[in-house]
Amino acid sequence: MPAINAARLLADLDHLRSIGAVETGVVRPALSDKDMEARRWLQQRFEDAGLDTTIDGVGNVLGRSPKPGPVLLIGSHSDTQPRGGWLDGALGVIYGLEIARALAEDPDTAELAVDVVSWQDEEGTYMSCLGSRSWCGTLDPEVEKTAASKEGVSVAEAIEAAGLTGVPRLTIEPNRYLGYLEAHIEQGAYLEQAGEHIGVVTAIVGIQAMRFRFHGEQNHAGTTTMARRKDASAALYELAHRINQEFPSVANDRTVWTMGRARIEPGAPSIVPGYAELDLQFRDRDEAILERFRDIATAIAQDIAGRGKVKVDVDPARAPVHPSLMDEGFQEHIAAAAEAAVPGKWQRMPSAAGHDPMIISHKLPCAMLFIPSIGGISHDFAEDSDREDIVIGCRVLADAAASILRERRNA
Amino acid sequence: MPAINAARLLADLDHLRSIGAVETGVVRPALSDKDMEARRWLQQRFEDAGLDTTIDGVGNVLGRSPKPGPVLLIGSHSDTQPRGGWLDGALGVIYGLEIARALAEDPDTAELAVDVVSWQDEEGTYMSCLGSRSWCGTLDPEVEKTAASKEGVSVAEAIEAAGLTGVPRLTIEPNRYLGYLEAHIEQGAYLEQAGEHIGVVTAIVGIQAMRFRFHGEQNHAGTTTMARRKDASAALYELAHRINQEFPSVANDRTVWTMGRARIEPGAPSIVPGYAELDLQFRDRDEAILERFRDIATAIAQDIAGRGKVKVDVDPARAPVHPSLMDEGFQEHIAAAAEAAVPGKWQRMPSAAGHDPMIISHKLPCAMLFIPSIGGISHDFAEDSDREDIVIGCRVLADAAASILRERRNA
Repeated sequence: MPAINAARLLADLDHLRSIGAVETGVVRPALSDKDMEARRWLQQRFEDAGLDTTIDGVGNVLGRSPKPGPVLLIGSHSDTQPRGGWLDGALGVIYGLEIARALAEDPDTAELAVDVVSWQDEEGTYMSCLGSRSWCGTLDPEVEKTAASKEGVSVAEAIEAAGLTGVPRLTIEPNRYLGYLEAHIEQGAYLEQAGEHIGVVTAIVGIQAMRFRFHGEQNHAGTTTMARRKDASAALYELAHRINQEFPSVANDRTVWTMGRARIEPGAPSIVPGYAELDLQFRDRDEAILERFRDIATAIAQDIAGRGKVKVDVDPARAPVHPSLMDEGFQEHIAAAAEAAVPGKWQRMPSAAGHDPMIISHKLPCAMLFIPSIGGISHDFAEDSDREDIVIGCRVLADAAASILRERRNA
Repeated sequence: MPAINAARLLADLDHLRSIGAVETGVVRPALSDKDMEARRWLQQRFEDAGLDTTIDGVGNVLGRSPKPGPVLLIGSHSDTQPRGGWLDGALGVIYGLEIARALAEDPDTAELAVDVVSWQDEEGTYMSCLGSRSWCGTLDPEVEKTAASKEGVSVAEAIEAAGLTGVPRLTIEPNRYLGYLEAHIEQGAYLEQAGEHIGVVTAIVGIQAMRFRFHGEQNHAGTTTMARRKDASAALYELAHRINQEFPSVANDRTVWTMGRARIEPGAPSIVPGYAELDLQFRDRDEAILERFRDIATAIAQDIAGRGKVKVDVDPARAPVHPSLMDEGFQEHIAAAAEAAVPGKWQRMPSAAGHDPMIISHKLPCAMLFIPSIGGISHDFAEDSDREDIVIGCRVLADAAASILRERRNA
């Protein structure tokens, strides 16, 4: 197992945390001054590690190993949520850097080639996974033109403000890479509750979302009899509750669904609502479950609309995200490294949140490793992980990376 | 039957409509310039009809008959909703004026005494039924101090702007009056659907309202399993749908309930809601039904809270309005007059909307008469009634008023 330098790893994470630090969290949204400051600092650290490092036209930071291939790409993203935690993204980038350094320092692994990357805007300040989409060549220029922040700033404007206008964009060299590895905090509490230290990610779950629009008739809440009403809110409440009743029969114990947004109009206690909207989102690693959910929700909506009182429009609320399967061979290497480091204290698990490998896995074999999140908290200043777990995760990923690279060399 | 002057009745309604006219509707909220202009015009018309007329310190317009009693008080309100119809309130005030004139002009009824009134702010721009509460002596000065418009203007400020500061307020002379009669548009569609011309109001329904506050735990919609969730929205959807399922078994065919306001927080498709609020309002003329509704809704909320996931607070959302029963003797007089004018084309019915007799019936016997609303529309510029129905209603109320006054004279 290559000897990673725990003190150096933690010091780099602490330094990255200081750029954009607010209270215990970090405010470093994509292409902001603090984001670019962090990327320039990463560029210098990658160079110090002997990597030829470029910040490309969307802000991706890529450190290329000068060694002959095959090469493993390791990294994550250094942009944050508007009020983000210190480890989300940062952890995986610094792991990549530390693994590149640790392998280079150990004579047994010095010949192994690791590139390190920090993708741009995984968090979607402008467009989720902007950097990895651009690198993979799957970013539609027309879609990029319409992407904007909540404040209405376009990608082009943000790139100009970041001083990147005219800077070339890097694109994937498929023949260079064996694949891509990313470590991340779990953002859930499975590992913590199980008392385990490592999650070997099997897949990133697929996500579908539906929006239901209920068209009824607005009326006086005193003088309109129940029989004459076309109450959009009653239809919404029925659909939502029946979904919560019927989905469990199809779900597995990791399937999730959420109806976190509902609008009732005009929204006054004394007015029978004429219009309502409900958003339904559901996630699973099994596409078949997602399809059955969509069918069930649509059938309930049709049943309600079929009574002839309230018209119900059903539309996708976002482009579906299909489940992304992680490479099985890579999973075996990570699992073996985890078993060596923390015997019996690891598990295979899906990722319920989205990550850049959703994009990259269409181009390269990918794998992910999770470390525990304290209290399962993420996308919040309170996000944290035990430093011991941070070090264990880096050791395991370094071991797995060396093992993958050696296997290919020996093949 | 006293001969009312249909042309004069309709001309006065048209003139009153012209004060604050906007499109087909009227904008004449309480104590506004247009409201006061209308009240000064009414004062002159009441004087022209031989009534000693006062605008009091809250803007009530009272025209007193100089004839010896007993006296019937007839009227309604001339203030409007922010975007009101031309008949809501105005109809009952001009009926009172026309009945006073018609009785005085007919030698057979000239000795009968009718006072005419336009109450202030029935619509609640500052406080619903402000004028009749003041007149009845049931307006708590402390409550009046805290009343304000949506824009934050206090009653005292509005009274000052209307030039009424220091003007004395009229109060009820209980020994003067046999009772109070008010005509109004139905604001519903029962009469229209039945092809009938007159509604004899049996009661003004009681209103109760409850607010449910759901306290759950906000979480990530991807990484929080269904088993670990404390989803405030799921609890809201269940309560609302179960109320809609269980209330019909207790309701009669005129009972109504509405959940027109729901808040889900933070209201994002990808966040498990940590907090939600639901308003429930219900109305019936039978207090026992209202109490059973309150018990059922409370029991469902306790059932949901009893699962230990989401805490549910249950509070009254407003002071309950108890059902107000109309005087049975007066109802008989109106029913007899209706049967004479439009045989078989009238019905007894509750009022599902609130009116000043809710306040006045605690001090004087009250009765109300409804005429049909086209399409059941009210509180809208589109509110309207057939002019034939307007004339029929006035004839019936005049006949009933004469009949009530004669009966008492002869007693």
